Amino acid sequence: MRLFVYSPLSAPARAYLHQQLPAEVEATFRADLAPEDQFPTFQEADVLLGNPPPTWLAAGPSPLLRFWQIDSAGFERYRHLRLPLPVANMGDFFSWPCAETMVGGLLALYRHLAELAVLQAQKKWVGGAYVRNRAGLLRGKRVVVLGAGAIALALRQQLSGFECPVQLLARTNSAAQLRSKDDLLAALPDTDIVINTLPGSAEGFVSAELLAAMRPGSIYASVGRGNTTDEPALIAALQAGHLGGAVLDVTAVEPLPADNPLWTLPNVLLTQHTGGGQALEDENKVDMLLRNLENLRHDQPLENLVDLSRGY
Amino acid sequence: MRLFVYSPLSAPARAYLHQQLPAEVEATFRADLAPEDQFPTFQEADVLLGNPPPTWLAAGPSPLLRFWQIDSAGFERYRHLRLPLPVANMGDFFSWPCAETMVGGLLALYRHLAELAVLQAQKKWVGGAYVRNRAGLLRGKRVVVLGAGAIALALRQQLSGFECPVQLLARTNSAAQLRSKDDLLAALPDTDIVINTLPGSAEGFVSAELLAAMRPGSIYASVGRGNTTDEPALIAALQAGHLGGAVLDVTAVEPLPADNPLWTLPNVLLTQHTGGGQALEDENKVDMLLRNLENLRHDQPLENLVDLSRGY
Repeated sequence: MRLFVYSPLSAPARAYLHQQLPAEVEATFRADLAPEDQFPTFQEADVLLGNPPPTWLAAGPSPLLRFWQIDSAGFERYRHLRLPLPVANMGDFFSWPCAETMVGGLLALYRHLAELAVLQAQKKWVGGAYVRNRAGLLRGKRVVVLGAGAIALALRQQLSGFECPVQLLARTNSAAQLRSKDDLLAALPDTDIVINTLPGSAEGFVSAELLAAMRPGSIYASVGRGNTTDEPALIAALQAGHLGGAVLDVTAVEPLPADNPLWTLPNVLLTQHTGGGQALEDENKVDMLLRNLENLRHDQPLENLVDLSRGY
Repeated sequence: MRLFVYSPLSAPARAYLHQQLPAEVEATFRADLAPEDQFPTFQEADVLLGNPPPTWLAAGPSPLLRFWQIDSAGFERYRHLRLPLPVANMGDFFSWPCAETMVGGLLALYRHLAELAVLQAQKKWVGGAYVRNRAGLLRGKRVVVLGAGAIALALRQQLSGFECPVQLLARTNSAAQLRSKDDLLAALPDTDIVINTLPGSAEGFVSAELLAAMRPGSIYASVGRGNTTDEPALIAALQAGHLGGAVLDVTAVEPLPADNPLWTLPNVLLTQHTGGGQALEDENKVDMLLRNLENLRHDQPLENLVDLSRGY
């Protein structure tokens, strides 16, 4: 069996893969091949790990290909494909860390931890009162999560310990309490925190109208795609003091341009698209592949299957 | 009825008190009196709000005093008193915010939010990978809390959403799973996070021996009194890389001297004794007093009663 590794694995993860791979599987790494040899070599593979250009698969994959392990949670750019083979993604592997970054970011705002970290870097002691009289609590804050996928579910779980009522917004997902933009607009006046987990297909969903409908002083957080937020409208709402703060893992343009006001607006925390991260990320991707290879070998159900058999 | 306000209330909180106080209660503020008039005026009060020197009460309070509302959670320095009147403290008013600062601080370490805040202040974009490959998760971390009081209970609740098994340490409190230093030493090799909530009476409890017994790479967090930690031993354990990091709301000396290594050690977050803080703190103290005055008037049970009738 031939495994084609498209993923740019770290050296330790690659060593780990070699060590763990069953003897009958021969791995070839894209990174070792000249550009002109990559696609032809892929066409001889039985198993694919990683996220190649959609064109590699658009004409129909090679007849040899038996299984494709996508190494991300998202797979929007492959949705138009119609593939007659099992395909798995990374499931909620990136979701839980994203949710932890959001909840940590919210606590950092309410408890002024970001401000304290900057003061620490300046060796500046300000005394308790300076912060204490402005500090808020996450406890009991009313939260709306845009989306009802794995990140939304992780957020709801993490926020349960803080007694936060959480409503999810999604058109068709049965986990959602809010089903439409009208439902959302009706809920916003009683909402303290809005957390965006929307995919790129929801371009511009968080519009100027929606931001204006948010409760004065409320917090906006986003770990969705950057294009789902009207960023100029968000900046205006923060500058006007309509919003109380923001935690942004994503921005419309990354790296964020130096002249973007988000860098310096008070009560804005930028987490620089680190939300999904965790140590040993590549090793965990390898583990996911190995588990699914094992499942294939024993005719067991695959983990985190996604449906790319129908096209969209 | 005469109310003596020892607490140094903010101007808005004082206005709020005036506005809310029943007509039959006359408030006198220590801050308005010459030093020599303060104690004599107190002796004519029926109700006391705030934390005067213990000497004011040591000889037995004035026979007029009917109720004392302490404006803090701690009341160690009054424990030797033997007072024949109801006394209440602020209950868990400061506990929940302390716990939020600790959990936020832990998330800030694992998700590198403090580091990202400092980078943001420098307008420095580092790209996801720089942080992602080092980021950890709070999920499932095994936690021991030193103490089993209100902060410990709040910590346990907040950490439940992160699937963290939490054990509390206390000699006699029935909420505790660990009852002795031996229990603790036995638990430490399987513990990822130790959170100190101990009172000042546990001086030096977190000793060099205890720090050495902590699991390599584990995290120390403290919102207990500064004197309960052997700080030089903690600094040595961090410098040696034995501990993975620390979140410290308290230090032995505050403000922290400029040459203390804690200022600049990596993976150390200093929250400068802001843990208990929340906006409208003084207004909330006034609310507590007003509720208990109302309870007194209607012969209802008082909130957050503490026992200073027996002496220690």
